[in-house]
Amino acid sequence: MRVGLLTGGGDVPGLNAAIRAVVKRGEGEYGHSIIGFRNGWRGVVDGASEPMTRQHIRNVLPVGGTLLGTARYHPHKSDGGLDAVMATLEAERIEALICIGGDGTLHAASKVAEAGIRIVAIPKTIDNDVWGTDQSIGFDTAVTIATEAIDRIHTTAESHNRVMIVEVMGRHAGWIAATAGIAGGAELVLTPEEPFDIDRIERFLKHRHRAHASFSIVVVAEGAVPAEGTAMHYETQVGKFGEIVAGAIGERLKAEIEQRTGFDTRVTVLGHVQRGGTPTPTDRILGSRFGVAAIDAVARGESNVMTALRGERVELVPLSEIAGKVKHVPDDLLAVARALA
Amino acid sequence: MRVGLLTGGGDVPGLNAAIRAVVKRGEGEYGHSIIGFRNGWRGVVDGASEPMTRQHIRNVLPVGGTLLGTARYHPHKSDGGLDAVMATLEAERIEALICIGGDGTLHAASKVAEAGIRIVAIPKTIDNDVWGTDQSIGFDTAVTIATEAIDRIHTTAESHNRVMIVEVMGRHAGWIAATAGIAGGAELVLTPEEPFDIDRIERFLKHRHRAHASFSIVVVAEGAVPAEGTAMHYETQVGKFGEIVAGAIGERLKAEIEQRTGFDTRVTVLGHVQRGGTPTPTDRILGSRFGVAAIDAVARGESNVMTALRGERVELVPLSEIAGKVKHVPDDLLAVARALA
Amino acid sequence: MRVGLLTGGGDVPGLNAAIRAVVKRGEGEYGHSIIGFRNGWRGVVDGASEPMTRQHIRNVLPVGGTLLGTARYHPHKSDGGLDAVMATLEAERIEALICIGGDGTLHAASKVAEAGIRIVAIPKTIDNDVWGTDQSIGFDTAVTIATEAIDRIHTTAESHNRVMIVEVMGRHAGWIAATAGIAGGAELVLTPEEPFDIDRIERFLKHRHRAHASFSIVVVAEGAVPAEGTAMHYETQVGKFGEIVAGAIGERLKAEIEQRTGFDTRVTVLGHVQRGGTPTPTDRILGSRFGVAAIDAVARGESNVMTALRGERVELVPLSEIAGKVKHVPDDLLAVARALA
Amino acid sequence: MRVGLLTGGGDVPGLNAAIRAVVKRGEGEYGHSIIGFRNGWRGVVDGASEPMTRQHIRNVLPVGGTLLGTARYHPHKSDGGLDAVMATLEAERIEALICIGGDGTLHAASKVAEAGIRIVAIPKTIDNDVWGTDQSIGFDTAVTIATEAIDRIHTTAESHNRVMIVEVMGRHAGWIAATAGIAGGAELVLTPEEPFDIDRIERFLKHRHRAHASFSIVVVAEGAVPAEGTAMHYETQVGKFGEIVAGAIGERLKAEIEQRTGFDTRVTVLGHVQRGGTPTPTDRILGSRFGVAAIDAVARGESNVMTALRGERVELVPLSEIAGKVKHVPDDLLAVARALA
Repeated sequence: MRVGLLTGGGDVPGLNAAIRAVVKRGEGEYGHSIIGFRNGWRGVVDGASEPMTRQHIRNVLPVGGTLLGTARYHPHKSDGGLDAVMATLEAERIEALICIGGDGTLHAASKVAEAGIRIVAIPKTIDNDVWGTDQSIGFDTAVTIATEAIDRIHTTAESHNRVMIVEVMGRHAGWIAATAGIAGGAELVLTPEEPFDIDRIERFLKHRHRAHASFSIVVVAEGAVPAEGTAMHYETQVGKFGEIVAGAIGERLKAEIEQRTGFDTRVTVLGHVQRGGTPTPTDRILGSRFGVAAIDAVARGESNVMTALRGERVELVPLSEIAGKVKHVPDDLLAVARALA
Repeated sequence: MRVGLLTGGGDVPGLNAAIRAVVKRGEGEYGHSIIGFRNGWRGVVDGASEPMTRQHIRNVLPVGGTLLGTARYHPHKSDGGLDAVMATLEAERIEALICIGGDGTLHAASKVAEAGIRIVAIPKTIDNDVWGTDQSIGFDTAVTIATEAIDRIHTTAESHNRVMIVEVMGRHAGWIAATAGIAGGAELVLTPEEPFDIDRIERFLKHRHRAHASFSIVVVAEGAVPAEGTAMHYETQVGKFGEIVAGAIGERLKAEIEQRTGFDTRVTVLGHVQRGGTPTPTDRILGSRFGVAAIDAVARGESNVMTALRGERVELVPLSEIAGKVKHVPDDLLAVARALA
Repeated sequence: MRVGLLTGGGDVPGLNAAIRAVVKRGEGEYGHSIIGFRNGWRGVVDGASEPMTRQHIRNVLPVGGTLLGTARYHPHKSDGGLDAVMATLEAERIEALICIGGDGTLHAASKVAEAGIRIVAIPKTIDNDVWGTDQSIGFDTAVTIATEAIDRIHTTAESHNRVMIVEVMGRHAGWIAATAGIAGGAELVLTPEEPFDIDRIERFLKHRHRAHASFSIVVVAEGAVPAEGTAMHYETQVGKFGEIVAGAIGERLKAEIEQRTGFDTRVTVLGHVQRGGTPTPTDRILGSRFGVAAIDAVARGESNVMTALRGERVELVPLSEIAGKVKHVPDDLLAVARALA
Repeated sequence: MRVGLLTGGGDVPGLNAAIRAVVKRGEGEYGHSIIGFRNGWRGVVDGASEPMTRQHIRNVLPVGGTLLGTARYHPHKSDGGLDAVMATLEAERIEALICIGGDGTLHAASKVAEAGIRIVAIPKTIDNDVWGTDQSIGFDTAVTIATEAIDRIHTTAESHNRVMIVEVMGRHAGWIAATAGIAGGAELVLTPEEPFDIDRIERFLKHRHRAHASFSIVVVAEGAVPAEGTAMHYETQVGKFGEIVAGAIGERLKAEIEQRTGFDTRVTVLGHVQRGGTPTPTDRILGSRFGVAAIDAVARGESNVMTALRGERVELVPLSEIAGKVKHVPDDLLAVARALA
């Protein structure tokens, strides 16, 4: 059996663990040929593929990124994209396709599945906002990196009596902000789930610095927004198409806080470091388990499903169930972040 | 309200996060007095306590160990132990007691609860074998340390064509061995759950080294044992009371493999480094969530319960349900370890 | 004997090791009283001090920042500053003052020494540009953090075919850029020592991406500047007083490269994370050795000197010799960075 | 020009940085062919070689171990070894040979040089005891790993009131013990340089635990020995040929301390983890600089020399000057370790 494999969307640590598991298990247990496509759906459209063997996956477990390459290209959004995908899959005699990706890749996958291709998906995103699974590949490493950064900033904040803003990833959901905020002991955590009240922030910081503390750490997700009706002095910069720009909310908050409180305020935008480097054990294990579960699902004839972590177990959920949904940070986790500020 | 707090059994990273959460939430939300006992049940028996304030918990999130100290003392196993506990709790006017610990501490806690004291327990153990919760405090950090060690040993194994044995903790369950084995890409994982067949190991290593590979990594839990009827040349050393001794199984395997295969074989016993140092974000978050949940449970009048992680949620389970049970590594996780060898 | 102690300028990891060494050795070997001033020269001017004992320095070795606090205040630059310093030192009966700091603090120290106070200085700066010593406290940790970040960005660059710019600290000298650039395998390293030619960079990147590579990593010191006569499209933003602004050169390079090559280019400004967190062993050892050497120098009656690393030895150099000099990256190190691009 | 390259002795982190530098610079600057021999001198004797190209060295900077493999084989110690070496070098038309290794490899190199082969050596050893250079490749990473382990053990020691012994590498010199002992804040550091007095250790620990402290950390080099005339209860185990056995001195100290003081004492033998894994920036930079210096030396016609770090510079020293010498830890560093206990 010939099984296709691709990684799409932004790269995250742990992708190679999933690739390795698919190849090792597919070849070793089932005798499948695993055909890797380069740069996500782009490589399917272009017919850029190569058979993956044990040689390709040697020593890749601790390596971040994806040895298949990736791209933010979605075939269903471009003219003839889906046709080109179908043509390649037919030419390559691909009987099933394992797609590792986030929202965009999974959406494309369900479109391809509608066209009759057998699809098993594996969720990855450092934002952890894929619906239907407790965790996605890449999230744990991102939280670890963000927490390390907050730890570092903590010592410098304390030495200098400053307000330190740390902007982390999370456009639609504040998973990294909430968890790294708790782990790093942040005084304030701002997420897309809870639009913030800048007047309250001003009061909080003034009270805190008057009362006892000499510094504060504010962790803000890039998708955090002020509550409606909040009067702010500065506008957040947006991209050409109205999209969120890294650093925009962090810089805006800094300007606002400095103007309102007079406190020396600095902003650090973590950016790309959050998605690179050696994956944590959790992401390697999750990638490995998802990879094994995906190739096992292919072998059992499953289609149009996604591997998902549910408590201690890996299960399959229909792709149709997760489409168009964002998994937000639950209230009790946000409550813990608030309680420990 | 006066709430007692203690940490018992072996120390693990993440205890301070739980202590901090209990103190911060208890004082800030409920106005409780949190009374910390020194060195686990030992401090209750001896009346060694002090009120915990925000001052005590400054900057403790990234610090391993426990600022309360701990001891492997169990009051119900010594004459007059329980009476001394009750006397202290009465003298100190403790209305509820939060106990952070593993099997032994939790067992003592249920004995104290039977005597009429309100108890809320928080599970911690790097072995992750407390029943009723997906994860216990300390496990994630231990897996991270063990995986780092396997990564390091990997490069030296490869450079020297050796069999490298890494002995990790886990007397009754092989959680660290299985997860760090998967994350580190071990060729063999030996756990208490699956007694090993030394003849099969011999055949596997010989075949592997003949076929293609120049080295092998074997991860073994300290509680791993040979299958019944297996003929081995060397006996595992046991302690005075028949207990498991760190390093014993590792050294025995080394002797056995060298004699059977002639391969240069080395053993590394990770030992105490697995339970120390800065906790991972996962352990800080778990400790924080459990601490908040425990003090909230106290405030709601709950008793004789343990905080537990179930999927994405923190819940309470009756202490009676978990007593005497060991949470073993599930078959599907062991299967992944085998599949990716 | 009463010995004053202060940390001035930006905080760096390893300061606490030096403080600990001064206190432990001063108290234990010589029976001195060590008087710590809060927030650098600010605390001397304000008379904010406290006696430092073994209790203060428990467990501080692995902790970043400075337990004395610090400030970027220079008494010789403000009216009456030096007089206030002298008044406090007299009132506190300080017989010698140990100053831990960078250029600014050391300059202030030499002014105070001229006024008749016995001074022993200890160099710290993540920029490593203090003249007269092979290394200053904080540099090794900063390089380690910057290298880790480049490692992380490497995997994401490779997965996405991008030019990734990493801006690191270094206003007057490119130590972090050169060393982390070599350690991280950067394709281009831009330092204040070698003004860059943007046309050459354009040709290099185009050639490299045409020839074989799919990505490039450019490490740039915040003080890097274009060579005179270079025509660039974008101006670097400067601060109100003409000073260097973090992120300015990185963003400018990004704009320039994108416009000239059309390659997808991203910039990461490491910022404050470079100066925080647990010090590396090298910085702890350097801090410890400098602290011991400083208090020994005080005991021997030395004055107006700075501790310095020279090869494997710690020596003393006259403060007068280092004033006004910047230690630049030597040519052979820049040559290695170029050779391995 | 055809230049041979080998790595001999125990593997250490940073070897790949040196290999990469030799290949990149040799090929890029000089157009040399670099011929890599497998497994040190073993591969020269066996004629196991392959031309090294840029392809081989991609992404190796952060990878520990050596991509050439290594072995503890010395041709001058086996019959016909040197003749076989000369035969291979002639058959392969090798004009110069770059040898990366420790004492044993360097000694073999000087023997080969005597036979008329052009040799440039690069020092590596985690023990840091190669004479003539401030630092050898691998040392900084080993110290970092050992310090991390001591940090971890610190928190568990403190939580449990124990004496914790950490045995680190160092048979003839105590570099790791002294530096990691200072960096980790050990109470006692035992090195080969200073034979220890067990009676004094007993008095020190008893006094310390009586006075104030609840725990102690003892860092011991594997080559540490008791002072002559010291009466000890336990003998240190030695190997078949009288050689030092890992763990022997640690276990012996543990037995001795427990018997004399009654304190709960545990020993951790770091072992192979000290020599594996990602190299620190310092080791990557040192490897890169040494690699460039070695191939430059070859190009200039130098022979029978070793690259050496002297302060901030890389220089060449005659191999003849370093033969048979051990670089011991200098007194002032040992004094710092003692002063800060």
